[in-house]
Amino acid sequence: MSRIAVINPNTTSSMTATVVRAAAAAAQPGTVLTGRTPTHGPATVETNADEVAGAAAVLAEIDRAEAESPAPDGYVIACFGDTGLAAAKERAVGPVVGMTEAALVTASLIAHRFTIVTMPRRTLAMSDRVVRELGLGHRCRVRAVDEQVAGVAGGSLQLLDQFVEQSWAAMVEDDAEAIILGCAGLADLVGPLRAELGIPVIEGVAAAVGLVEALVAQGLSTSRANTYAPTGAGR
Amino acid sequence: MSRIAVINPNTTSSMTATVVRAAAAAAQPGTVLTGRTPTHGPATVETNADEVAGAAAVLAEIDRAEAESPAPDGYVIACFGDTGLAAAKERAVGPVVGMTEAALVTASLIAHRFTIVTMPRRTLAMSDRVVRELGLGHRCRVRAVDEQVAGVAGGSLQLLDQFVEQSWAAMVEDDAEAIILGCAGLADLVGPLRAELGIPVIEGVAAAVGLVEALVAQGLSTSRANTYAPTGAGR
Amino acid sequence: MSRIAVINPNTTSSMTATVVRAAAAAAQPGTVLTGRTPTHGPATVETNADEVAGAAAVLAEIDRAEAESPAPDGYVIACFGDTGLAAAKERAVGPVVGMTEAALVTASLIAHRFTIVTMPRRTLAMSDRVVRELGLGHRCRVRAVDEQVAGVAGGSLQLLDQFVEQSWAAMVEDDAEAIILGCAGLADLVGPLRAELGIPVIEGVAAAVGLVEALVAQGLSTSRANTYAPTGAGR
Amino acid sequence: MSRIAVINPNTTSSMTATVVRAAAAAAQPGTVLTGRTPTHGPATVETNADEVAGAAAVLAEIDRAEAESPAPDGYVIACFGDTGLAAAKERAVGPVVGMTEAALVTASLIAHRFTIVTMPRRTLAMSDRVVRELGLGHRCRVRAVDEQVAGVAGGSLQLLDQFVEQSWAAMVEDDAEAIILGCAGLADLVGPLRAELGIPVIEGVAAAVGLVEALVAQGLSTSRANTYAPTGAGR
Amino acid sequence: MSRIAVINPNTTSSMTATVVRAAAAAAQPGTVLTGRTPTHGPATVETNADEVAGAAAVLAEIDRAEAESPAPDGYVIACFGDTGLAAAKERAVGPVVGMTEAALVTASLIAHRFTIVTMPRRTLAMSDRVVRELGLGHRCRVRAVDEQVAGVAGGSLQLLDQFVEQSWAAMVEDDAEAIILGCAGLADLVGPLRAELGIPVIEGVAAAVGLVEALVAQGLSTSRANTYAPTGAGR
Amino acid sequence: MSRIAVINPNTTSSMTATVVRAAAAAAQPGTVLTGRTPTHGPATVETNADEVAGAAAVLAEIDRAEAESPAPDGYVIACFGDTGLAAAKERAVGPVVGMTEAALVTASLIAHRFTIVTMPRRTLAMSDRVVRELGLGHRCRVRAVDEQVAGVAGGSLQLLDQFVEQSWAAMVEDDAEAIILGCAGLADLVGPLRAELGIPVIEGVAAAVGLVEALVAQGLSTSRANTYAPTGAGR
Repeated sequence: MSRIAVINPNTTSSMTATVVRAAAAAAQPGTVLTGRTPTHGPATVETNADEVAGAAAVLAEIDRAEAESPAPDGYVIACFGDTGLAAAKERAVGPVVGMTEAALVTASLIAHRFTIVTMPRRTLAMSDRVVRELGLGHRCRVRAVDEQVAGVAGGSLQLLDQFVEQSWAAMVEDDAEAIILGCAGLADLVGPLRAELGIPVIEGVAAAVGLVEALVAQGLSTSRANTYAPTGAGR
Repeated sequence: MSRIAVINPNTTSSMTATVVRAAAAAAQPGTVLTGRTPTHGPATVETNADEVAGAAAVLAEIDRAEAESPAPDGYVIACFGDTGLAAAKERAVGPVVGMTEAALVTASLIAHRFTIVTMPRRTLAMSDRVVRELGLGHRCRVRAVDEQVAGVAGGSLQLLDQFVEQSWAAMVEDDAEAIILGCAGLADLVGPLRAELGIPVIEGVAAAVGLVEALVAQGLSTSRANTYAPTGAGR
Repeated sequence: MSRIAVINPNTTSSMTATVVRAAAAAAQPGTVLTGRTPTHGPATVETNADEVAGAAAVLAEIDRAEAESPAPDGYVIACFGDTGLAAAKERAVGPVVGMTEAALVTASLIAHRFTIVTMPRRTLAMSDRVVRELGLGHRCRVRAVDEQVAGVAGGSLQLLDQFVEQSWAAMVEDDAEAIILGCAGLADLVGPLRAELGIPVIEGVAAAVGLVEALVAQGLSTSRANTYAPTGAGR
Repeated sequence: MSRIAVINPNTTSSMTATVVRAAAAAAQPGTVLTGRTPTHGPATVETNADEVAGAAAVLAEIDRAEAESPAPDGYVIACFGDTGLAAAKERAVGPVVGMTEAALVTASLIAHRFTIVTMPRRTLAMSDRVVRELGLGHRCRVRAVDEQVAGVAGGSLQLLDQFVEQSWAAMVEDDAEAIILGCAGLADLVGPLRAELGIPVIEGVAAAVGLVEALVAQGLSTSRANTYAPTGAGR
Repeated sequence: MSRIAVINPNTTSSMTATVVRAAAAAAQPGTVLTGRTPTHGPATVETNADEVAGAAAVLAEIDRAEAESPAPDGYVIACFGDTGLAAAKERAVGPVVGMTEAALVTASLIAHRFTIVTMPRRTLAMSDRVVRELGLGHRCRVRAVDEQVAGVAGGSLQLLDQFVEQSWAAMVEDDAEAIILGCAGLADLVGPLRAELGIPVIEGVAAAVGLVEALVAQGLSTSRANTYAPTGAGR
Repeated sequence: MSRIAVINPNTTSSMTATVVRAAAAAAQPGTVLTGRTPTHGPATVETNADEVAGAAAVLAEIDRAEAESPAPDGYVIACFGDTGLAAAKERAVGPVVGMTEAALVTASLIAHRFTIVTMPRRTLAMSDRVVRELGLGHRCRVRAVDEQVAGVAGGSLQLLDQFVEQSWAAMVEDDAEAIILGCAGLADLVGPLRAELGIPVIEGVAAAVGLVEALVAQGLSTSRANTYAPTGAGR
């Protein structure tokens, strides 16, 4: 049994609800999920400045959660681009997995080539960054639907046609065998999109929960050598 | 709850027992694990010819398991190098994860740089192959302890000093923050090595079980577009 | 003078005849070519399971040939994707060259960028794999004509239009300066396609024969250090 | 003539003085340099959490500076790892250059291979990140002297021996032809280290000033398409 | 103050005038620019043979300039593809920057992804070469307008439509955020193209002048270790 | 039967004799080899300036040979670094293969990892350049013996110990399975080095001859699309 905190880096609590629902749908029976919405932070994460504010919000939530007793066994960062992930890994005692890295490694296990469909277009570089950290550029392309994140705070089904269009382009032009949904608020697109495309559609929050559960079950957490050594640790 | 078959590509049943133990240690409570030892196949997988025979053995076991009712919900391939993995993904209805890819994606979540310590030295290229498929060459180095796989059929503690030596070299020279054990029979090294090194030590079979559980929980299996389309599917 | 065995990994003897013809057209005067068709194996190699069976067939043919007196001086593996190549290199005394690696290195000598046109589409990953092993992803793209291999057992001229279409797309969109035919049964397309496109068209079996001749002439064969050490060699 | 703000992401004003001195030594005659020390932020940037706080500090300084009349013509981010750089580029009207990217592109112009000597060892991943964004991994290695940044607040000459040792190792083992100093407070090492090694030693703040001057002179600033579109810009 | 020689590798003096004008527009007030046109060399650099002749012309001009008193403080090589650059770096005492490498590093500072629009199409490989040396293939694509260089000896405005067309394609298909003009004679396109596209347009000669000024200001020149050791230096 | 010209880019005729001997040892019975020594050019190719002069010398020899009747069927460029290769491919009617690219593709066929041992150390970048063009950086490392090329004009056996030392280091530290001799004058080291090391030792001129023979036999020459279109061809 594990207690996992799902951190939404933005202050929009309806999106926290969405991501917790996405997480719950894929969680193991014994897993207890808690959504965390920061009190201060960006309303959505679209710009690089939003990422700075979102990272601070993530870190504040990690610190708050770690101060609880008991602290969570692990964390999911529920924002495409994995805002604040490195700092979160450094600070939390348990493992932390970002939805972007989770979606990518999940796709790599079930498809030879795959495509991220993110939104809005200005965030392409955030996807590129995680793809490059993982080295998956030879298997993954990034596409965008140019809609604002705020528009999915209440649900994303109105974007189905646009995601279908980009996904079909990915299948035809990129030889994509799976689609990654590139935004945290899109969980309700998974079902209709799978039905439409006939190939796997990956939602990163659900993917991340499974990875945190797996790490906890293996007794693994972030390495404390070099990169993620605890703050204040000797040089 | 999921039923996961752990396929040992070689015919050495003591190694099947070892990998099932490794898997069990990390499995979710509701997971039912079944080890499968092929009746025909190589005694160990060390050579490229062993990989050919091992892949056929894996495929035969997949076919046998798929013919059972119910078939397993997913599979782990318990051989470093992920012998027969592509064919297994193609043939099984449920998801299939290799211990090498599992160990690598797990390491990527908890460490910036990491090192595989495999054995024997002649198998370096098998590790290189999986590292390259995943694109992790910029974060992962491969080292070897030059001992034969047959030597660990009854346990691997006698190799602790050699693994410590290579792991320390990895920490000092490669800036490794985690170690991946590069052979299926090494599960009993995990504890002593973690204690010795103070950094995460990743055992791929345990890692793979968690990933299969996560895929099953997400309702995901191998994409049937292109690469892993079922045998006999229309062109 | 060298005796070279051309191994067809599938059991379709008309395809063996085709590849031997392709090889003969490019062989040196003193070269003696022998086609080898396995008695057991897949009818064609299209799926990952076919590759497993094909690799076993290749290995069996290598073993049979090596037992002859004299054994061949070298081998060509005549299947796109180079099924069973690593094991064949390990087992044969003389050099072994796959048609895919042969086509790629040949293209790299006469063109800056080039494109593989393979078939059927589900085999894209097999081409990708060899491209990546050789590191040529920055210069080579892979396209597909979505036809089954069985359809070319009696000749491939009926596919000319489709290959012309993909090749023109490659010239315009990929800036391809040469085309690699991505299947073993396409030798009769070389002439018409060269005439149509005005750029080099590379047939891998012909390319491989030349490389084996060159290796034999240099007194070179597969290295026995590490990766391709003989089966049963000390660790 | 250009007015360039040099932003120190940490609150240690002695380090701001150091980096402004470094910048001044390489600035064009007409350039007016202003150091900016944030009122809130980390004392030094060593951890991932420091980077989150440092990025917020950088952004706050950018906003303050942009509100001045006239705003600076361009900015230098004076922290190895380029904390907050993407957000700064997004927010500032004029160009922004990080000292790490500056050092790397400068090295690429005067040396075939080169090595970063950073500090402390836990920050290796920050250097790796910028090297990878620029794609220079085939020419650049990262080494570390394991000393804390706080120790160089008053000068860095006491570390000369350690930097010489790592630099010599870089010349011998990495075939390094130039050394990049991987921390903002090391400007006083440049002279002694050049004298000792006989190869170029690159200080990133000095390098960044020159690049900002060049961008301003060309009338170039950050592109507003996609990645760095202004905050609040239409989707 | 620095004296910078702008070397045109071809013998067309009207192009030397163009590149010196481009350089002057971006030079610092104290910079003295001298254009140098070789007496022997190719009329334009379009073919690989032109590059051989152009490299010799560059080297001859470097030798002539170095023999002057005082020799220039630094050099710009004003030909896309950076003809003769390695030899020029080796031979000149001061720093030497090619317009292609300059344009690429400049683009990397102000845009996430960018596209070179070069000419004619046969020179694609020359751009690819520099992109690959710098490792920027993940961020930069190369396109071509298929016009001969000789056609721009008297100005390039007649090509505006073709450059607009390729640039728009780059913005839409490559997600390009900046455009690099891939030929030395195109400086008069910068203004109209920026106006048309609304994104940065980078001219490499202007970019190179700024980089040489920056290197001179830092007291940096080409490393004399290994690759660019002076001719005749001890082995 | 094919007539192949072996072009030595330098004016040292004893080295031409050496490379022709190397070529002859591996040539097919019907091949007629002609060594060509330029009348003008560098005495050896060690510096970047030497490469400029050597490329011009190569081109002059190609032009001279193409003017003969009959012209050669193909060419080998016998200088490590493949001086002048692109221009030679452009100008010659028949195929042209450089000894460096030949050695590398040959090594890729018989070894998983391999190491170039070049000389002198200042030429490391020339090897790196060809390795990178071919994309083999993940399998090939470059080492150097720091001796001048002039020293091997009369034979290279005096360097055996140094080549053995670097080769052993390559086997132990780089896991090299084959060694490439990185200079044109080292053919007499092949035998002793093979005997000493027990792994393949590859001499690039011998390798190149075989590749030219293979290309000629396949009726293939350099593509005339884009990069190697004939000089003077329409844009």
